Order: sequence, then C-alpha cells, then structure tokens
Amino acid sequence: MTSSMLAAVLHGTKDLRVESRPRPEATPGSVVLRVRRAGVCGSDVHYFNEGRCGSFAVTAPFIIGHEFSAEVVAVGDGVRNLAIGQHVVANPAWQCGQCDYCRAGRGNLCRNVRMLGSASTQPHTDGAFCEYLRLTADQCYPIPEKMDLGIAALMEPFAVGMHALSCAGSVVGKRVLVTGGGAIGLVTAIAARAVGATTVAVSDPVEERRNMALTVGADAALDPTAPDYQDQVTKLTDDGFDVVLEASGAPPALKGAFTTTRRGGTIVQIGTISVPEVALPVNLIMVRELHIVGSFRYGNVWPAAVRLVSSGRVDLKPLITQVLPLRQAAEAVALAGSRSGVVKVQLDFT
Amino acid sequence: MTSSMLAAVLHGTKDLRVESRPRPEATPGSVVLRVRRAGVCGSDVHYFNEGRCGSFAVTAPFIIGHEFSAEVVAVGDGVRNLAIGQHVVANPAWQCGQCDYCRAGRGNLCRNVRMLGSASTQPHTDGAFCEYLRLTADQCYPIPEKMDLGIAALMEPFAVGMHALSCAGSVVGKRVLVTGGGAIGLVTAIAARAVGATTVAVSDPVEERRNMALTVGADAALDPTAPDYQDQVTKLTDDGFDVVLEASGAPPALKGAFTTTRRGGTIVQIGTISVPEVALPVNLIMVRELHIVGSFRYGNVWPAAVRLVSSGRVDLKPLITQVLPLRQAAEAVALAGSRSGVVKVQLDFT
Amino acid sequence: MTSSMLAAVLHGTKDLRVESRPRPEATPGSVVLRVRRAGVCGSDVHYFNEGRCGSFAVTAPFIIGHEFSAEVVAVGDGVRNLAIGQHVVANPAWQCGQCDYCRAGRGNLCRNVRMLGSASTQPHTDGAFCEYLRLTADQCYPIPEKMDLGIAALMEPFAVGMHALSCAGSVVGKRVLVTGGGAIGLVTAIAARAVGATTVAVSDPVEERRNMALTVGADAALDPTAPDYQDQVTKLTDDGFDVVLEASGAPPALKGAFTTTRRGGTIVQIGTISVPEVALPVNLIMVRELHIVGSFRYGNVWPAAVRLVSSGRVDLKPLITQVLPLRQAAEAVALAGSRSGVVKVQLDFT
Amino acid sequence: MTSSMLAAVLHGTKDLRVESRPRPEATPGSVVLRVRRAGVCGSDVHYFNEGRCGSFAVTAPFIIGHEFSAEVVAVGDGVRNLAIGQHVVANPAWQCGQCDYCRAGRGNLCRNVRMLGSASTQPHTDGAFCEYLRLTADQCYPIPEKMDLGIAALMEPFAVGMHALSCAGSVVGKRVLVTGGGAIGLVTAIAARAVGATTVAVSDPVEERRNMALTVGADAALDPTAPDYQDQVTKLTDDGFDVVLEASGAPPALKGAFTTTRRGGTIVQIGTISVPEVALPVNLIMVRELHIVGSFRYGNVWPAAVRLVSSGRVDLKPLITQVLPLRQAAEAVALAGSRSGVVKVQLDFT
Repeated sequence: MTSSMLAAVLHGTKDLRVESRPRPEATPGSVVLRVRRAGVCGSDVHYFNEGRCGSFAVTAPFIIGHEFSAEVVAVGDGVRNLAIGQHVVANPAWQCGQCDYCRAGRGNLCRNVRMLGSASTQPHTDGAFCEYLRLTADQCYPIPEKMDLGIAALMEPFAVGMHALSCAGSVVGKRVLVTGGGAIGLVTAIAARAVGATTVAVSDPVEERRNMALTVGADAALDPTAPDYQDQVTKLTDDGFDVVLEASGAPPALKGAFTTTRRGGTIVQIGTISVPEVALPVNLIMVRELHIVGSFRYGNVWPAAVRLVSSGRVDLKPLITQVLPLRQAAEAVALAGSRSGVVKVQLDFT
Repeated sequence: MTSSMLAAVLHGTKDLRVESRPRPEATPGSVVLRVRRAGVCGSDVHYFNEGRCGSFAVTAPFIIGHEFSAEVVAVGDGVRNLAIGQHVVANPAWQCGQCDYCRAGRGNLCRNVRMLGSASTQPHTDGAFCEYLRLTADQCYPIPEKMDLGIAALMEPFAVGMHALSCAGSVVGKRVLVTGGGAIGLVTAIAARAVGATTVAVSDPVEERRNMALTVGADAALDPTAPDYQDQVTKLTDDGFDVVLEASGAPPALKGAFTTTRRGGTIVQIGTISVPEVALPVNLIMVRELHIVGSFRYGNVWPAAVRLVSSGRVDLKPLITQVLPLRQAAEAVALAGSRSGVVKVQLDFT
Repeated sequence: MTSSMLAAVLHGTKDLRVESRPRPEATPGSVVLRVRRAGVCGSDVHYFNEGRCGSFAVTAPFIIGHEFSAEVVAVGDGVRNLAIGQHVVANPAWQCGQCDYCRAGRGNLCRNVRMLGSASTQPHTDGAFCEYLRLTADQCYPIPEKMDLGIAALMEPFAVGMHALSCAGSVVGKRVLVTGGGAIGLVTAIAARAVGATTVAVSDPVEERRNMALTVGADAALDPTAPDYQDQVTKLTDDGFDVVLEASGAPPALKGAFTTTRRGGTIVQIGTISVPEVALPVNLIMVRELHIVGSFRYGNVWPAAVRLVSSGRVDLKPLITQVLPLRQAAEAVALAGSRSGVVKVQLDFT
Repeated sequence: MTSSMLAAVLHGTKDLRVESRPRPEATPGSVVLRVRRAGVCGSDVHYFNEGRCGSFAVTAPFIIGHEFSAEVVAVGDGVRNLAIGQHVVANPAWQCGQCDYCRAGRGNLCRNVRMLGSASTQPHTDGAFCEYLRLTADQCYPIPEKMDLGIAALMEPFAVGMHALSCAGSVVGKRVLVTGGGAIGLVTAIAARAVGATTVAVSDPVEERRNMALTVGADAALDPTAPDYQDQVTKLTDDGFDVVLEASGAPPALKGAFTTTRRGGTIVQIGTISVPEVALPVNLIMVRELHIVGSFRYGNVWPAAVRLVSSGRVDLKPLITQVLPLRQAAEAVALAGSRSGVVKVQLDFT
C-alpha cells in the first residue's frame, strides 16, 4: 500500500537527514529486502565527516550504508534461490557478470561494479540506511532464522576478514599478526583463530583496542610503539610471523610487516593506507620470498562466513558496542567516528 | 654406564617379549632419545595378532611401536636443532633425502624410506617400544616442556589426521564427513574442527564410536547402515559434504563417499582399504568434478600439529583410554585389539 | 526481413532433417549469432545413431550441435562486451548465475545448467547446427578477425583439453600421458605440450590414431595392448607419468592409470567411462598419494584457450579432416561416427 | 694420482689468479665432480670489480663461480643417485636439512645455507671456477649425456627463471612482461614462453637487449623510457599484464609494474633492486588485488628445468656469447662486466 519509506540521506558534510524516499519494487532477477539492522562503517564516517571517502567526493545527496541484515519481502521473476520471509545478508556490490574478471570468478574485481551507499559512481549509488532495498538475487545469502540480526549485520565486515584470510592461504598451525585493532582488525583476528591459526596477535598503539583484541580471543596484544616490540615478536614467533594482515592503514604498520614476517611468509593488505606511497625495503621481498597480497572486499567467502557464524565457532556479538534507531542516524555516524568506547555502532529498524 | 635397555620384541604371532637389548649411542647427525610414553597403533595389533601387517610378514624378531614422546639424552655431531633435556615427538620415518621425491619436498613418498617398528624392510626396522632410541635430528620436533607426555605420544596419529586435512585443501566454512570412528577417524574429526570446518560429522556403524565422536567435538554422528542415512546427509548438507575423509578401511565407506560428496568436493583416502579392489561409480568423478586424494602418513605437518596441540586449540586427552607399564606390553597390544572401550592404549616408561 | 532459417533437426535415430525454423531475435543481455562453422562431436553421433546420449533419450525433435564459430549479428540491451560484426566462439552452457556453484566461480557445476543441442533437459535445448543462434553475452568470447573459422570451431573441444590440464595442476617439466587418441585426446595432447609438459605420450590401441598423435606433436605414441607396454612406460618415465589424462572412456585405461602414474601424480578423468562401475586398486591412491580429478567441460579456460590458439602456439588445423555444407548434416554426422580417416568433421555455413 | 688442481682465486678487486689448489676427495654422502664448463654471473662480476657483492665483502682469497656443468669422477659412501661418468648440473647451495625451512620443503630459505663461490659466509665458500669440486649428492642432477655442456652450464640461471615462473603461479594463456633484458631476464622470457604464456614481452631501455629478447623468442620488446610506453602496454594487453617478472634491479621497473599489472595479477621480484627502499603506490595492491612475490634462487625446479632443456622445448644456446679457457678467467670476468655484445661468458675446462 505505502510506496514510500524512510532513509538516511547524506546531503553534505555532517548533514545526514532521515527523510522519505520511494520504496523500491521487485524487478526480474531481483528481490526487495526490508532492512532490519545496519552497521556504520569507516567509509560512512568519512563521507559524513569529510564529504568524501578517499577520492570519491559527494556531489549529490545519496543514502549511505552497506552493512546490514534484512528480510526478503518481495521476489522478482526468475529468482530461484530466495523466498519471501527469509532472513538474508548481502554482498553490497553489483557485479556485471560479463567482464573478464566476473567470468573468471573474480567478481570483486569487476570492471563495472557499483557499490551500495557509495559515491564512487555517477550518479551515486544509494545504500542501506533505509527501510527497503532492491538487490539482485545473486547478491543475497540466506541466514538461519535463529541468527541474531545484529550479529548478521556484522557479516559484511566479517566477510572482509574472512576474505583477507583466504588471500593469506592456509593459516593452519601458523603464527598470525593483525596490525590494527579497529573493527576490521578484530573480525580478522576472530576469523584467524577460527580457521586454525595457533598464535593470533593484534598490534595497536591504543591500549583500549589491545584490550578489546584480548577480549575477543587474541592470544597476544602488542604495542608497535613499544621499544621492545621486535623482541616481543621474536619471543612469540622465533623467526617472525607466518602471516601479517594489515588492517590499520598506517604506513609504519605496512613497512614494519616486512621485518616481522618470517621467510616464505605472507603480508595481506586489507586497509587503505593513509598516504599514496610508502617507501618499502623491497629486497626483503626477494631474499625472504615474501608474498604481499591485496585483499579487496569479499571474494567468494559469503557462504563460508555465514556458516562460521551460524555454527557458533565465532562470536561477533562483543563487537556491537552501540545500537540506535534509524531516526538517530546522524548521531550514530558521529558516534562511530569517535575515538573511544566504540567498535561497531548499528542502526536498528524494528 | 648401562649399555643395555628393555624393549618389547615381537618374536611371532602373539609372542611379544620384554627383554634386554643394547642401548643405542649417538652418531653424527643423530640423537638418542629416552622414550617416555608410546601408543599402540592398529599396525602393532596386526603384527601381534597375525604375524604380519598387510603384505609385510614378520620373518625375524623386532621391536614394534612407532608412536611416542621422548626426551633427548644424547646429541651427535652436527646436530643443530636439538639439545639434551628437550622433550620431543618424532616422525618415525627415515627419508633418504636424495631421491626425487625427497628433493621435491615430498619425503613421505621417499623411494628408500625405512619405518620405525616395521617389517616392511629386510632386516626389519626396530621400533619405539623400548627405553632408548636413535633417530636423525631431522626426524625430531621439540615440544613445550609443559606438554603432557601422554598427549604428546598422540602426536603421530594426530599428524596423520592433520596431513589428511592438508590433502583436502582448505576446509574453512565447509561441511566435512569422517567415515570411521576409530583413533584415526577421531583425531581427523578433532583436527577438522580446529581448522575451520563448520559441520564435522563422523559416521560409524558402532554406537560406542559414534558417542565417542560426539564427546570429542563432532557436530553429528551418523550410522551409515541406517535406512535413512542418505536423508540425514541431505538434511545436514543439502547437496552433500564438501569433504569426506575415509578412515574406516571399509569398501562401502569409500564407495558411499562418491554419493555423499557434493560437486567439486574432495574425498581423502587415509586408511588402507581391506580389499585390493573396489568397484566405484567412476563417472561421478567427472560430472561432479570430484577430487579423490590419497593421504600417506604425515607430509610436512609436524610443526603445525605440535602448535595446534600446544596452543590448546585441540584436546587429545580423551582419546587415551588405557595406560600400562612397558613390562605389560603384550597385554597392552592385546587390549588395543579388543573391540570395546578402547580408543588408544599407551605404554608408560617412567 | 527473413524471419526463418535453416536448421538440422534430429527427429529420431538416424533421422536428421535440414528444415526451416524461426530465426531468434536479441533479448536483453543476449546476442544473436550467425553460425559460420560447426563441428560434429561424439555426443551428436550418439544422439544420431542411438537416439540417446548416455542417460539422455531424445523424446522430441531438436536441433543438435554445440561446437561452432560465429559472427555477432544483433546485440540486446545491456550487453557490454560484444559488438555487431565480431567473430566469436562460445561456451554452449547456460549457467544460472544464482546457485552456490555459479557464485563460487564454478559455473560448470551449475545446478540449473542447460546445454546447447542437448536432450538433458525437458523440453530439449536446441543447438548450433542452424544458421542463427541466441546466447547470453557472458557465453561469448570474441576472437581475432584473422582467426580461421574452422580452427575457431575447434575451440570448444580444445577448451575441454585445456580445462583438463588446468585440473591437472601445473604440468611444467612433467611427463604426461593422454589415454585415447580421439579428438579430445589429441587436443589434450596438443594443449599439454603448449603449457610446458616435456614428455607428452598418447596411448591408443589403434595405429592410425597413434600416428595422428605423432603428427600433432606427441613425443611418443604407445599401444596399451602391447605386451611390453609397462616396460615402455618405465623407459619413458622411470617411475611413471606425473599426469595421466583419461580421454578414451575405456575402463582398462582408467584402471591402468593407477599403475602408470608415479607417486604424488595426478589422474584426470575427462571422458565418460563406458560402464557404470570400474574395479580399482584403491590402496594405490593412498600409498602413492595419487590425485584423481574429474574434469567436466570447460571451467573458466575460454580466454586462455582463445589466446593460445590466436598466438600460434598451438595448431589445431590438422584435426579438421572433413568439411561438408549444412544441407549434408546427416552425412556429416554419419561420417563422424565412422571408424577410420576421421578426426573432426565440420559443417560449413557460408 | 695428482692431488692438486687449477682454480681461479679472487685475491681482491680485479685480482683473479689461476693457481694451484688441493683437489677434493669424496666423503660419505658426497661426490667429486670434474667441472666441464662454467658461466660468469653478475655476482662474480661484482666480486671482481668491487671486491664485494652487495653486503658481502671479500675478506680473504676464495674461488668464485657457481654456474657450471660437470662430470662425476668419484662417489662417496651412501650416495644412491649418482654414478661415476654421469654428467650433472648442480644446485650451488648447501642446505642444512634440519631447519624448519628445509624440513618444510623450502630449502632455498635454509637458515644455515652456504653458497658456492660466495663471501656471504666466514670463511668464504670456494666456488666452481676450478677443475674439481666436492658437493653433496642431493645437490646434483644428472643430465643426458647428449646435452651440450655449454648449454648445461646455463641450467643455473635458467633455474632462476623457472623458479620465478613457478612463483608466478600458472602463466598458461597469460600475458607476461619481463622487465630487464639481461641474462636472467632472457632466460625468464624463454621459460615463460615454454610454459604457456601467450604474450611474452621484455622491456629494457637498451636497444641491443631488446633485439636479443626478440631473437630468443619474445613476442614484443618494449622501451620503458618511450613516451608512449603505457599506450603500448594497453595495446598489447588491454587492462595490463597478468604477470610482471622484475629482472632488472631498476627501481622504476618495480614501481612501474604496479601500473602495468592488471587486477588480480602478479609481480615477481627476481633481481636485487639497486637501492634499499623504493616508494610504492601501495593502495593499488589492495584495490587491484595484486600479488607481489619474491623469487629467491631455485626452489625445487631443477628436475623440471633439466627436462625442459633436454626435451628441446627451449634453446639456451644463443645466450652463450663468449667462451674462454680457464687460464683466461680474469679476462672472462672482465668481459662479462662490459656493456655491449655480451650475454653470457663461459669458461671452458676441456
């Protein structure tokens, strides 16, 4: 009956308004979802605080947000894998399916991708901080009805961590360091432990974040600014970590990984580094046969991520530090950008 | 001072005698170990009960046994990686290091291998059911001093399970079936869970074994002789298991894996099948793109296995069902071959 | 203007009629192709001679054929990767894009696949032995305008061979045996040589096929029925082939691969074996750590296959033994099924 | 009978003397080789011209050289894989076999490695520019008697190229760029073509080297200093090379690889970069999911390298530009360091 819905629309720097927008309808191959819970990501904070995220500037109002859990409320023609009433999580990227990358099974590198809640395209692509959403069937993954919808809304960042680990190759029996104790660093550490790493360390200069890392199951939390940092690494690992996953965006973390990674080891770059270029000791790549691997978004990890969370092998709940209603979207995004006491802020839609 | 030691020597079928033997001395590149705890393997039971293990007949007395934990008591010239007093576990295989397989990093396929406590070579190779043992340095892996020596003596079968999983490729977020709930099946199931499988099922026709599987952490225990077995598989996995690890040696278990494994899935054969040939529905290999992979002994998994046990991620203790002193070696091997109430019988040397 | 076209329609056993059919039109996401050259596959011969192909019985008239080269003559809305006038080859399978296999990048295992010129679905799916064809954009791969259209029509079987090699893992510097010297065996041998195998042998009991194998570049041609066959294998390879690719469908070829493959080696099953079950010496899988791998259709090898042929690294031309016009489709299919002097029969549409 | 031999001993900068040295004798596990042909490597030139190679300074006289072909003249106890009279090539590295890297099948990363003809250890390790040499059996690989001994002496640099390609993953059907047209760049390009790359380009600012690259089979030779270089890359590859192998040591070559490599592509660093740090556009690693991989020496490629050369799939002969007798060792090394007309200078021992 109703053809409108509420949405959090970013009009400019620090100007996020909850207002009415047309409610989407199902089209062939697509479904309409009712959003139940949505998380605030660092990129949402960048858009809100700076009117841009990296090189993507906000040039027109658009709905932000891309981490969420939802319920299927309408199903278009030709949809085989979903039914009304199912709870789902979703890959926020539309992939073209025709380009060489998509056809090679690497849709996260699609030449024509559009991203939920992103100013990377013109016009900007509306996101998930709204009541209803249309996605193509292949973006959605059903979750068990019993799964907490707050936890489910963490599936997107967890998928980032899982993909980073899949890029690292097997970590079974290995010593793993995650540099950066923010939300992505923490889900990566949780994932590393669940998939067989035997030493999972998290490094962060901020004590609160190191404590949070220990709370969610890290075996060790290191301060990379401590004078004896390298000694601590040696004590934990002898010849260095097998795998270092960089989730801080700090240039020294990436550079430091070259000396904390053992021979034959792997460095996975997950986060955007905060400067365009970093001077790196490149000959270590050769003499130590390092692998330096980029991890971009999610690859094909969604089903595995859903099963790991469903099985109870991982517990993401402690990461949800605040939940606010949709009408307080601006407060939620501002809070997510604050320094202390925050891991993941979510919007509730019930 | 003493140059002799006690050893359990197999003289023929059901004739295992504890008697005196010369104590070995260190040679260049080798170490002498004092055995602390040793487990009885199915192959020891075969030698004891039948005077042979598969095609290897006992033609002269020899010391059996190859699963153990020990302490380094002497170190030969040129040994770099070990010191007197260290606790160790060891790969019971001597690999030649010169053949094409050894040099390709696949020493478990060595053309010239000799195996501790085995009648596969002439003369037979003495084993670990004795007080002192000489091994080359590269066979030994130090363990933390705090590790329980009974648990450490389970490292060899656990390494079998870990290698089987490494042969399976990644099991992260996957649905895994282990066919056979004996000691190898159980360590494999424990390992599968620790390295990220999200559904770990064990199938065995014997209820006691299914219960043990659940005790050590399996998510489901299936009776493959139940009329609704295939329905149970479908209920657990939809289109079948991603990975089936065959540890029973029963021909129907191997054949059944062809229909319980989903498309693109992997079947790992760990156990010796009890008959020379099995009729298999081979076209399923093609249309489902199955991978059928052999897992022989340990590959290079020892360091990872040691770390997984040390880290507390896995608990092998419940598998030790009986411990007897060395002088009761014959009783221990007989007990290990009994049907009920037994997973792993160990000999204690303290 | 004209809305009809000619097509070779199979009405029943040995009843293939060239008759008029409606010409397809472009729809969103699809293109219309004008077929230029089409090859006769063994499955076309089965349909023609027996009214069935394996378990798929012909229950209504349908157009057969699925190997072809073509030219784009119409482009539907939303097609990004193709333009009118381009020459193309195509994956004859429609994949749903929504199922778990498709989304994992394994569309050849799609749950909902339909195949050009196949009675595997109801109603049957019309094929390529016709003047015009509609396919989705993601099925088509542009080829250079200079590529011979007869050679291009061999891309489908060549892709089968390439996929089999990709399933084998790296063959660089390896000794490879292809069992079966038919069209698939020959393209597989050609591919093996082009991707770095250093000994490429083809085995076939038929002398004419062995000679053809040598003509297209095999290093050796073996008669598997010769009394000294195993000695020849040993002479060529010492401990056996690293990789055996089974393309004959003969049960002894598959079974024989277990003893002609060296430790750690790989057996790839490409062809449909002519009986439902084969008794196999399964313990060799374990003690030799064999990999037995199914290869089904094409995986994602199309771009690599096109580039290998375009680059001139491989020459498929000698495989085209006969070319007939469309109106002689019945003769062409009958000829393709004859024993001698035939590798690949093609239909020409110019 | 004779217990002395001739050897080219480096006493200091530009002071290479052919003098008498004791001839080695076989010890258990080792063989004595008579050197037949030896090549001059860039590291030999560095030692000769600068008295150091990178951080390794010459502090005492030692025999240089590590690329060679030879004949087995004596065999120690316990050697299984070699016989007197065999022709061999050899891995110039002694690996300890006991450290964690060696036991994981990654002996090229051995913690205790010593290298033939190298000042990296104290005392320095004598090399191959001498008549007789003792190596352990596992370092040696037999070659066919018919193989040209000059070509065989190129096996060591060819193994460097082959290992770089094995580090790149499969290059089948891929577009490959080798940056740097020196000896290592050329063998890498030759190897790339032999293992299935469909476009092999070599970039070098020096025209003579670009011409040599075309002579040995490169599909394209690019001048990286040309104003339209990036356009040429796009024309050859559309979205960039799948694999870039850096063999020049030039910082701009490594940095440039970040923009000439397509999404999901791989950069292999083979050569030592001439400066300790290079500023790199690190965020491309993430958004393009680049892999940057170090390749150090030879891995386990020796058997494959020997077979590729034996099979005639690759022709290394054109790389031998000058051959001098041992007594002209100093002239040979000086010549190898000259700018023009030189790819590989060899010493002959017959």
